[in-house]
Amino acid sequence: MKYPKIPLAQTVIQLCKAKGIKHIVISPGSRNAPLTIGFTNNPFFICYSIVDERCAAFFALGIAQQLQEPTAVVCTSGSALLNYYPAVAEAFYSDVPLVVLSADRPKHLIGVGDGQTINQKNVFENHILYSANLKLDLNEKDEVEEELPIFKNMENKIEALLGLKKGIQDYNEAEINKAINTAYSQNGPVHINIPFDEPLYDMVDVLSVNPKTIPIEKKSLEIESSVLKDCINNWNAASKKMVLVGVSSPNQIEQQWLDVLAKDDSVIVFTETTSNLHHEAFFPSIDKIIAPLNDEDFKTLQPEILLTFGGLIVSKKIKAFLRKHKPKQHWHIDLNKANDTFFSLNQWIKTTPNDFFSKFLPEVELSKSDYNRVWQSVKETRAVNHADYLKSVTFSDLKAFEIILNNIPNHTVLQLGNSSTVRYAQLFDLNKTLEVFCNRGTSGIDGSTSTAVGCAVSNPKQTTLISGDLSFIYDSNALWNNFIPNNFRIIVINNRGGGIFRILPGHKNTENFDTYFETNHNLTAEHLCNMYGFEYESVSDAADLKDRLNTFYTASHKPKLLEIFTPKHLNDEVLLDYFKAMG
Amino acid sequence: MKYPKIPLAQTVIQLCKAKGIKHIVISPGSRNAPLTIGFTNNPFFICYSIVDERCAAFFALGIAQQLQEPTAVVCTSGSALLNYYPAVAEAFYSDVPLVVLSADRPKHLIGVGDGQTINQKNVFENHILYSANLKLDLNEKDEVEEELPIFKNMENKIEALLGLKKGIQDYNEAEINKAINTAYSQNGPVHINIPFDEPLYDMVDVLSVNPKTIPIEKKSLEIESSVLKDCINNWNAASKKMVLVGVSSPNQIEQQWLDVLAKDDSVIVFTETTSNLHHEAFFPSIDKIIAPLNDEDFKTLQPEILLTFGGLIVSKKIKAFLRKHKPKQHWHIDLNKANDTFFSLNQWIKTTPNDFFSKFLPEVELSKSDYNRVWQSVKETRAVNHADYLKSVTFSDLKAFEIILNNIPNHTVLQLGNSSTVRYAQLFDLNKTLEVFCNRGTSGIDGSTSTAVGCAVSNPKQTTLISGDLSFIYDSNALWNNFIPNNFRIIVINNRGGGIFRILPGHKNTENFDTYFETNHNLTAEHLCNMYGFEYESVSDAADLKDRLNTFYTASHKPKLLEIFTPKHLNDEVLLDYFKAMG
Repeated sequence: MKYPKIPLAQTVIQLCKAKGIKHIVISPGSRNAPLTIGFTNNPFFICYSIVDERCAAFFALGIAQQLQEPTAVVCTSGSALLNYYPAVAEAFYSDVPLVVLSADRPKHLIGVGDGQTINQKNVFENHILYSANLKLDLNEKDEVEEELPIFKNMENKIEALLGLKKGIQDYNEAEINKAINTAYSQNGPVHINIPFDEPLYDMVDVLSVNPKTIPIEKKSLEIESSVLKDCINNWNAASKKMVLVGVSSPNQIEQQWLDVLAKDDSVIVFTETTSNLHHEAFFPSIDKIIAPLNDEDFKTLQPEILLTFGGLIVSKKIKAFLRKHKPKQHWHIDLNKANDTFFSLNQWIKTTPNDFFSKFLPEVELSKSDYNRVWQSVKETRAVNHADYLKSVTFSDLKAFEIILNNIPNHTVLQLGNSSTVRYAQLFDLNKTLEVFCNRGTSGIDGSTSTAVGCAVSNPKQTTLISGDLSFIYDSNALWNNFIPNNFRIIVINNRGGGIFRILPGHKNTENFDTYFETNHNLTAEHLCNMYGFEYESVSDAADLKDRLNTFYTASHKPKLLEIFTPKHLNDEVLLDYFKAMG
Repeated sequence: MKYPKIPLAQTVIQLCKAKGIKHIVISPGSRNAPLTIGFTNNPFFICYSIVDERCAAFFALGIAQQLQEPTAVVCTSGSALLNYYPAVAEAFYSDVPLVVLSADRPKHLIGVGDGQTINQKNVFENHILYSANLKLDLNEKDEVEEELPIFKNMENKIEALLGLKKGIQDYNEAEINKAINTAYSQNGPVHINIPFDEPLYDMVDVLSVNPKTIPIEKKSLEIESSVLKDCINNWNAASKKMVLVGVSSPNQIEQQWLDVLAKDDSVIVFTETTSNLHHEAFFPSIDKIIAPLNDEDFKTLQPEILLTFGGLIVSKKIKAFLRKHKPKQHWHIDLNKANDTFFSLNQWIKTTPNDFFSKFLPEVELSKSDYNRVWQSVKETRAVNHADYLKSVTFSDLKAFEIILNNIPNHTVLQLGNSSTVRYAQLFDLNKTLEVFCNRGTSGIDGSTSTAVGCAVSNPKQTTLISGDLSFIYDSNALWNNFIPNNFRIIVINNRGGGIFRILPGHKNTENFDTYFETNHNLTAEHLCNMYGFEYESVSDAADLKDRLNTFYTASHKPKLLEIFTPKHLNDEVLLDYFKAMG
């Protein structure tokens, strides 16, 4: 096998292998050649080449999100690295393990006006779990002299040099271990910055390093017994308990615990679309329940205890409700962090939901309460109103979502764009066999397509992305990708601009509004499909949409995109009327 | 006139106006609505709407680069801001005044799991001249209580509140002044982070603030007389003086000083293509001169004094030469910074080149030396060899550049992509009437097209961008822009991948090389032209290219793009042979 000659490149690559990082997304460059050579010549790794680093990082995020294991991105020095930042921040807030490997110039070539040279050290400081700033291998005399003063009290210079070289190798190995271990143990992005000096392209047949692997410390899932006892007592004493579940991977919770929660009269479970949690007794489509409520209703709904798990909450309505009508107690279950989203967090339970439930639920009593019953009946009313309204409504974003969501094949993966898309999807009771994902860490429109492509590449199930037009064009370079499987599907809902802004209390239908908020345009996805080898279809009414969806998901020789044109001047009215009709 | 109701938004906008920031590039969003409303309703400002923030920031950079005055970019909270980073770093290293105005959530909504919320404070720390982190207006009781402890010794609470409110207003005004003044005085990017609380869309007819304008401190152009005297003495004593000019705006230096330098036998002036400096006695196309030199030649060329001004140096060959054959002295002239590019800098002259020359050149003597004469004759030989080689060479990147550069209309603006494009252009003696620009701060491929569009919008002269295929597709969202003038021209040299990598000592024509270094593809610019309303033409030989260029620049109803297909497997050989033929 061929290896890069530079020992530091070998060290990084051997440690990635030892830690089980298999998927490597490489963007072209020269400074990162030692890494590119090393990763692509080693059959252990699955390598991808993506030119636009912004897309490359979101693509890697999509892979890591699916495999639930660290994925690496590799770039050259300079602004290349900065293009990773949107995905790094998304990974930071949505707990996805992304390992950024950036090549850098040697220290003496930074800050002297060389090309493709920036200040890469700690550049993601605000949104990174760990930054490892590696030191250059000592191949050059100048470098040695620079570092030598530390060793000046040593008598033998050769010894000093060898010691220094070993010291640096040990330091680098420790830093790489620490960074990768952090990505694993805390589920998030880490940055390893790697200086290389020329020559960059030399190869060797034998490794010159044998880096030490430091094992990952497993976090214990212990819950303090006093905490558990308090929780049990408080829970048993309360007659209104709300469970709210944010972004979660599929199959996180054992069915038996869901069943226990479901049959407790004093508990209601609100599940967001991104929670991947289903039970017929639970309450999906939260906004549909909450939208028509008045202050008195809110008081009835206000829980004594709010128990949350999963990632960020999409529904603005439930955030506003719970911030105004605060629960007496808010407990959040998560190994790594707890957001005080409702300004009432009093208990962070540092374990997994499954572990907590296995210790907690067998100990609690079913309480007598009409909390659940009352809201079940509200749910039933909403379901009837929802069906009635949808039956009669004109073709629009809302109607399109109904048809789309009714026609996604079972047991496939659904990727949702930000932010109208995920909000519309939240209004419907989703097919339980779907796995649903959305970049809700930063809720940006910048990388949904690239993430979906990464997902499609790494999940054997068929992946469908639903995206708005602005979000789709924003990330159009996502299609500049040689790895897109033929069964990948994109549905673009094109309302010719950021339709979501029409719902806000703005100034719609003025020229300023159209230009600066809605960002009016007449673009379609057709040319991009022709450019990047997607089969393209478009529809603009309900009948055509249903018709196309009949064959949209069947096997094809190319990935496919379906563009749905909806009436921009009606969509906001249809949605506002929908919420009125729920009451 | 309509103003946003929020006093902090008024303050930012009034200060931008007072400081003369006219051009405002806005990306759509809700949190930044107070700024969008304020800027777009005030006829003082020229506003642009660009969805993709990466492009928006490079577009603004293009405007600021042309007007040599600060240009503002305005975005919503969250990852939107991070997409500015590549352009912020470019502005940082190429000294372009870019003012980033980011809307943010109030402090109490950061870090609690809200959507589109990241840690925006000081996020560009590594590459920004100043970060102003503004404080929220005190409209909410909660906010007041939070800040109140500072004032707890005041007896009258109302007074305390008013004092606090005034204190915050004063703080914000001072910070905004400082940030904008820094952008002006130090020529570079600054970041103003602006928290807004809801409601965001309210408007008023009368301003509620009257922010204080703090004048910009002008830097003095004084040179210490002892420094000047030393420079004069050293200069007069040296028989080999080299002047090397990097990135500079057109018309920076008075012709009289260029003439003085030109007639000194002991001086040679090396001008990079991006220096916008021309004189028949000077040495453009540096690489052409240096490529064939051997160690003995280098010793002849090695200057005693190296005098540099302008921005970063493109030529790798001159960097390698001067680092190995260091001058005894290296002086750099610049108001704000001096890079020790050749590890021999001993004098940073803190003024403008024009000011320095006006004080320095009248005092120095013309030295007797054959330094200039020897290299003038080398230049003549190279010119003959260059012409001979180009006459016979096959159609290729190099030949295409010759034809393109011979046919660009006089008195127009040329924007060059990174990095093959600018390197090829350096081999030719450029039309002196052109103004030439290239993003050499970070030398990234990420924003050349957006920068060129910003240039085309703000410079009344016709703008032509020459770009490689990867760089063009990378920044394809640059065309998603409603402000592109019809006379804008793009020339894409499509060699189906990053052809520049073929010249490096890599492993070309292996599968790994084609995939991970060259990033082989079969894409063209045609679909993007159809999508974004560009007239498209393509050629693949010299005769067709010449033919098309006859009409390419004439008035049109659409902007135009000419794509030139060159033979990827020949380009690198042609270039390597070119350098051999120079000897």
